[in-house]
Amino acid sequence: MSSAVRPCITLITDFGLRDPFVGIMKGVILNIVPSAVIVDVTHEIDTFDLMHAAFVLKSTYAFFPRGTIHLVVVDPGVGSDRRPILVESNDYLFVAPDNGLLSPALSELRNIRAFHLTNSRFFLHPLSHTFHGRDVFAPVAAWLCRGVNPDEFGDELTSVVELKLPAARKLNDRCWRGEVLRIDRFGNLITSFPLELLDTQGGMPPPFRIIIEGREISRFCLSYAEVPVGDLAVIPGSAGFLEIVSRQASAADALLVRQHGEFILELV
Amino acid sequence: MSSAVRPCITLITDFGLRDPFVGIMKGVILNIVPSAVIVDVTHEIDTFDLMHAAFVLKSTYAFFPRGTIHLVVVDPGVGSDRRPILVESNDYLFVAPDNGLLSPALSELRNIRAFHLTNSRFFLHPLSHTFHGRDVFAPVAAWLCRGVNPDEFGDELTSVVELKLPAARKLNDRCWRGEVLRIDRFGNLITSFPLELLDTQGGMPPPFRIIIEGREISRFCLSYAEVPVGDLAVIPGSAGFLEIVSRQASAADALLVRQHGEFILELV
Amino acid sequence: MSSAVRPCITLITDFGLRDPFVGIMKGVILNIVPSAVIVDVTHEIDTFDLMHAAFVLKSTYAFFPRGTIHLVVVDPGVGSDRRPILVESNDYLFVAPDNGLLSPALSELRNIRAFHLTNSRFFLHPLSHTFHGRDVFAPVAAWLCRGVNPDEFGDELTSVVELKLPAARKLNDRCWRGEVLRIDRFGNLITSFPLELLDTQGGMPPPFRIIIEGREISRFCLSYAEVPVGDLAVIPGSAGFLEIVSRQASAADALLVRQHGEFILELV
Repeated sequence: MSSAVRPCITLITDFGLRDPFVGIMKGVILNIVPSAVIVDVTHEIDTFDLMHAAFVLKSTYAFFPRGTIHLVVVDPGVGSDRRPILVESNDYLFVAPDNGLLSPALSELRNIRAFHLTNSRFFLHPLSHTFHGRDVFAPVAAWLCRGVNPDEFGDELTSVVELKLPAARKLNDRCWRGEVLRIDRFGNLITSFPLELLDTQGGMPPPFRIIIEGREISRFCLSYAEVPVGDLAVIPGSAGFLEIVSRQASAADALLVRQHGEFILELV
Repeated sequence: MSSAVRPCITLITDFGLRDPFVGIMKGVILNIVPSAVIVDVTHEIDTFDLMHAAFVLKSTYAFFPRGTIHLVVVDPGVGSDRRPILVESNDYLFVAPDNGLLSPALSELRNIRAFHLTNSRFFLHPLSHTFHGRDVFAPVAAWLCRGVNPDEFGDELTSVVELKLPAARKLNDRCWRGEVLRIDRFGNLITSFPLELLDTQGGMPPPFRIIIEGREISRFCLSYAEVPVGDLAVIPGSAGFLEIVSRQASAADALLVRQHGEFILELV
Repeated sequence: MSSAVRPCITLITDFGLRDPFVGIMKGVILNIVPSAVIVDVTHEIDTFDLMHAAFVLKSTYAFFPRGTIHLVVVDPGVGSDRRPILVESNDYLFVAPDNGLLSPALSELRNIRAFHLTNSRFFLHPLSHTFHGRDVFAPVAAWLCRGVNPDEFGDELTSVVELKLPAARKLNDRCWRGEVLRIDRFGNLITSFPLELLDTQGGMPPPFRIIIEGREISRFCLSYAEVPVGDLAVIPGSAGFLEIVSRQASAADALLVRQHGEFILELV
């Protein structure tokens, strides 16, 4: 990968902002590379939720400039034998614990090489057993940003842990079972159904119905603004998945559905 | 407007930080202008609350350097025919949906020219119907930051949507009806009464009483620290409005009052 | 102190991010020094909680580059006669109200000189009685960042207000009383016991038990991952204190303990 002129480091963690953890990581980075551009993506990943981290990373990484270093610390296994890793690809670098949260992003990238972070020269010392965000991941991202080559951090790995976001399951030619991948701040239900499932290229999709929590939804709209007030509809969401939404109201509240809640989509 | 040497882009949205939306917008901006200084003002505007966004923008924009680009995305009408706009003034640039949230800030500025964002050359493609923060507003702000002239983005508009923050209503020569504009994090009630309503230039105002939720408040203090513990008082707030406050406690909780709650102010 | 090439300004406040306060402070800083690197540490200090602010500052300041200006605004006494101060040390600069929140950090530093901020040339005018973050602290930090000497802001002080974080109290040779300093986002209990209290240099500490809320904890682990599921243990925390933790669960919820809750540690 060609090095960017002024690479930025993005941060995704489940540390929240009430505790000192994020501030410490920023300090560690700036101490090593004072000109680093640190971009907070979010520190509000649900605690220990690898799927949430994987979803946010997959949804955001490709919008950043080539050469960006994505630092993701959701690390329930800190202090165990889970490996700290660095992954290089054609366009981006990733630093994270090897627990699968990188997979959905990596599956879209080419020329991937992963390295086991073992060269303690790039760690903070004494190395804690409980805060590798501070002692391992932040300094490695910072040294990467300063131009250290990925292979200087440790041995190349032949594989990393895999994690898949929930996918739609085909029940028959006209029927799939899906689940609610995420509920966003507005109460929209981001489903596990990719847009392609309903062929909307030309505008309107074929007739369908979604059955969820005993309710049936067959209305399709292109935007939230098209949904009649008080009604529910399916729209093509900006993350590449179908979404079940209401208008200026929470579909999640209307349906009393929770994350990972299941539903059926049928072509009729 | 003369261009600033190193303009910054401020962000005000109702996207929160748990979802990927803000990270995506930052990526889009940095991809177009890697040296952009992106300043998070807040992403915690109450969802769809144009008044809240308008109040935060009006309260903050003028503290930033000349040439700052204020990007505000609270956009319940995304996907409808509401227009995306860019507004140029003597000192600042604004990029937002045309739903009125800019009005209270614009009413304080001169040499205003508004443009309808129609030149899709500056948009992300494919253009979604649901996330113009990503596809329209962020890239336009970034291209502005790179020096593209406002009139290259689309036709000049003769008017934009107006929205007014609630104002005090005069009932008679000595009596006004007002409302609670905002309740801040500390539980202070920011009222719709400008400081000028009680002439405090010389120090203490004339005798007055506020009647709110059956309680009467006639104490005036210059700071929170002057309010006797357990008591309520009116102070001249830092945003240019009278505030009803308690001391290291929430006036909102003490009065059980909510946003937009009404009250009477009487000179006695 | 030698001046850093490109000093950064960190922000710690109890202002939250829903209100305009933090955005205003950032604007004020950038207006004075457009090249400032502003780093949000946190704006979620519990309102008026000096201990929380002191703990976050003490935990984070030393990770930043030499010359960093730490701006801390938790200011229940704003508008009273509490002094606004600037503190210079060997390595860092601090700007804050003189209410003790700097003490735990300052106690670790050398060559400390404190100055009373009285030179109104560096303030915003008109000076409010309620928002010195905007009118005093932010502009002073910005002028410092631009290279103004500390002694230009006001007279040197011979002492500042002291505040101590709660410490362990020795009851007898083998027994101490401590308290819960902080509960972090994961529900880990950060105690007031420094790591040295249990001599863990060589690995495992001597046998001990902690008695808290009627429960007895005698297990010692080096990391969260070592704690058996459903069990509680003591670990050496990353902040230099013993922590009472559970595994991927909240120890605070398991013990129904709150901040400042007391407990006993006994060597057995």
